[in-house]
Amino acid sequence: MTAVGRKLWAIPEGYIPGESFSRDRRFVSHETACVLNTGDAPARVKLMVYFSDRDPAGPYLFTVAPRRTLHLRFNDLADPEPIPVNTDYASLFESNVPVIVQHTRLDARDPHVALLSTIAFPVDQEGGLG
Amino acid sequence: MTAVGRKLWAIPEGYIPGESFSRDRRFVSHETACVLNTGDAPARVKLMVYFSDRDPAGPYLFTVAPRRTLHLRFNDLADPEPIPVNTDYASLFESNVPVIVQHTRLDARDPHVALLSTIAFPVDQEGGLG
Amino acid sequence: MTAVGRKLWAIPEGYIPGESFSRDRRFVSHETACVLNTGDAPARVKLMVYFSDRDPAGPYLFTVAPRRTLHLRFNDLADPEPIPVNTDYASLFESNVPVIVQHTRLDARDPHVALLSTIAFPVDQEGGLG
Amino acid sequence: MTAVGRKLWAIPEGYIPGESFSRDRRFVSHETACVLNTGDAPARVKLMVYFSDRDPAGPYLFTVAPRRTLHLRFNDLADPEPIPVNTDYASLFESNVPVIVQHTRLDARDPHVALLSTIAFPVDQEGGLG
Repeated sequence: MTAVGRKLWAIPEGYIPGESFSRDRRFVSHETACVLNTGDAPARVKLMVYFSDRDPAGPYLFTVAPRRTLHLRFNDLADPEPIPVNTDYASLFESNVPVIVQHTRLDARDPHVALLSTIAFPVDQEGGLG
Repeated sequence: MTAVGRKLWAIPEGYIPGESFSRDRRFVSHETACVLNTGDAPARVKLMVYFSDRDPAGPYLFTVAPRRTLHLRFNDLADPEPIPVNTDYASLFESNVPVIVQHTRLDARDPHVALLSTIAFPVDQEGGLG
Repeated sequence: MTAVGRKLWAIPEGYIPGESFSRDRRFVSHETACVLNTGDAPARVKLMVYFSDRDPAGPYLFTVAPRRTLHLRFNDLADPEPIPVNTDYASLFESNVPVIVQHTRLDARDPHVALLSTIAFPVDQEGGLG
Repeated sequence: MTAVGRKLWAIPEGYIPGESFSRDRRFVSHETACVLNTGDAPARVKLMVYFSDRDPAGPYLFTVAPRRTLHLRFNDLADPEPIPVNTDYASLFESNVPVIVQHTRLDARDPHVALLSTIAFPVDQEGGLG
């Protein structure tokens, strides 16, 4: 199977609510970048995180195995630094092979949760994270 | 009427909540792939489902009749195997004619339901599921 | 100002919940197609509605005035026939000038409402509704 | 780092609910345009807001600093005029450099909030706001 998708994806929205009604991982407020790698080679991804009032954080490095999906929680990022809660951010993903990226938030500040999701923006231009 | 859309679509997000507040089909937590076939020929679709820690499941085969829409619940898939609940997955749809695909989740773990939806990603590259 | 966007748009998802907690128009469960016409000429739009088990309904005809947006509720459609509630449908919009279309649902079966939204799919192929 | 994205973006949906269960800024019903500027130059953006029954408002002018994201609340717009609540609107963003735009609503009329989000529509045509 061929790898399908694009190599550069952007998600301008980002916000992890700082409260959760539960400590159950399923019900902790979180944001996720769902990455699908349909190809036969590992997808090595560099993630940069942008803020409103400081320099970007990153690169965060992760791998999506061949023919696998990785639903990466921004909450779980630690190296080089965690993503702060209650803070506006945005993200840019650069993969060495084509992948597809979707953005989802679960807002569990209240037991009656809210959801949002969108396919990320596939950037047409070729380019690296410098 | 001409068939419009694309032949290859991807949805990186996938997660069927394992609980529902009701057994009414309308209020069972579910994920749906809405497929629109505007053309005069049946759309024969092959669906592959990807996971984080095992080989993909499928192909699942289904048909969307001419000038019809099919709102396919992932919960209803059985052959070759059901989709597990509380499990991250992703999906790839390949149709023999152009169609349009949209992804929706109803989270009914709580009576105050939550929704998400997005047009799926139309993969530009031609290619088969092998 | 030039008209921007596309002339043919598809929304595979469609479902108007049959119940609402209120009769206030703001809180009646509904689906909306938001159409933006940035140009200086009226946008004359033909809408076809597709179902899972019957022939399409339409065309529904409406106009979006120059430099205006119209947030069209599917619930309000009457000619040639109303859209049934609790029923899967899909929609295809054809405009004589470029417009942009976004799809939104308010699910108000419960007072704690749920929302979904996505930009509709801009169909690349030129073509008419026959 | 190169600026990535597009220069002209549209969001046909727009509606700020007129009520909020709280005065905490986090829980005031709002709509946001999240703009990501990955480049090394400031993004100077002109925003026009369209209505159903009157001429457009604007231009609203704002800047997104290099390598920053701005999550602009429509509620905060004041010059040349505020955006009315409980009113259908749409928006068009024109930037002097490529950016990426995402649209989000938090409906906090009820303490059990609802969310929607979508990447905005990247208009292919070049053109100005006149």
